[in-house]
Amino acid sequence: MKIAEVSIQTTHRTELQPINNLLTELISKNGWQDGVVTIFVPHTTAGITINENADPDVARDMTRFLDIFVPNSPDFRHSEGNSDAHIKASLIGSSVQVILRSGRLWLGTWQGIYFCEFDGPRSRNLRVAFQGEV
Amino acid sequence: MKIAEVSIQTTHRTELQPINNLLTELISKNGWQDGVVTIFVPHTTAGITINENADPDVARDMTRFLDIFVPNSPDFRHSEGNSDAHIKASLIGSSVQVILRSGRLWLGTWQGIYFCEFDGPRSRNLRVAFQGEV
Amino acid sequence: MKIAEVSIQTTHRTELQPINNLLTELISKNGWQDGVVTIFVPHTTAGITINENADPDVARDMTRFLDIFVPNSPDFRHSEGNSDAHIKASLIGSSVQVILRSGRLWLGTWQGIYFCEFDGPRSRNLRVAFQGEV
Repeated sequence: MKIAEVSIQTTHRTELQPINNLLTELISKNGWQDGVVTIFVPHTTAGITINENADPDVARDMTRFLDIFVPNSPDFRHSEGNSDAHIKASLIGSSVQVILRSGRLWLGTWQGIYFCEFDGPRSRNLRVAFQGEV
Repeated sequence: MKIAEVSIQTTHRTELQPINNLLTELISKNGWQDGVVTIFVPHTTAGITINENADPDVARDMTRFLDIFVPNSPDFRHSEGNSDAHIKASLIGSSVQVILRSGRLWLGTWQGIYFCEFDGPRSRNLRVAFQGEV
Repeated sequence: MKIAEVSIQTTHRTELQPINNLLTELISKNGWQDGVVTIFVPHTTAGITINENADPDVARDMTRFLDIFVPNSPDFRHSEGNSDAHIKASLIGSSVQVILRSGRLWLGTWQGIYFCEFDGPRSRNLRVAFQGEV
């Protein structure tokens, strides 16, 4: 297994930031070829998802839906007041797995990988594990 | 790592299609024995989940819930008009990992794997990666 | 690949039970060092997630949100009357992947792994697969 870390800076409270280029660069720099890449978010108010990379309105509609669907209810008890961000993180999930072929992310034509910020803006990290052939 | 692809035809806009038999056949044909199988959906308006395989009403209740819970709001901006399908895809997720033992999916008694169509009917694909012993 | 199983007893209908200690013990006992651990729930009315381990109110707010957001609607048809639990299970997911470094779960400072019971109390199991170096 090979591992790597990479930093991200988010700029809004809720934000879907495309990270394909960041990952492509990381994979290329490390010479990873064929295997499975696990991309893990070590935060509890952020997540990671795969969705459309062509029309930015898809990411915008998703953050809008989540903000409406998971309001920051006065009924929540967590004293930091960001329970909505924790709940969104668990609904979206903390990792994705992508197959790597000949050094390239084997994604569908319209797929992009997004870092999902739910309590930004903040400095964040991604932890990446590669299992396969270098 | 070994990889394989398989095609699926869906028949409704929203549909949970059981794919255990399809995967069992694929695994057997490739002679995969002990390891972890990653089943990846290369689409942005479809997902994959594991749920009850005994009573078809469970899949029906789930699609019904998602259709009510994630309506196709006029407030969404994505011009293709299927933002609800993109959101459902991210809530359900684009891959599952299942442990393989002696060539069999090591699932619980009541578990089945479902391809989740959210913008069908369409021709779809699954990408499968196996890490382990053949 | 190495595999292991571990039992859990839940005590409420909906409950997020922290399982970091259980997993740490399992990993130590098996001598697993560097790789990726897949933790899989072989049940259809339970799930697994990673979220804040410091303030128990986060888990409480999450179970409260899910109970309100996914009510046990009289419109559901599944005869066992626990469709809400099946839906919650698919929203949260049936497995997580965590990177292991030098025998330790490589989690963020505030991250804990939670077994998510949605139809308890029950006796449950976890299936764990380790791919890497022992």
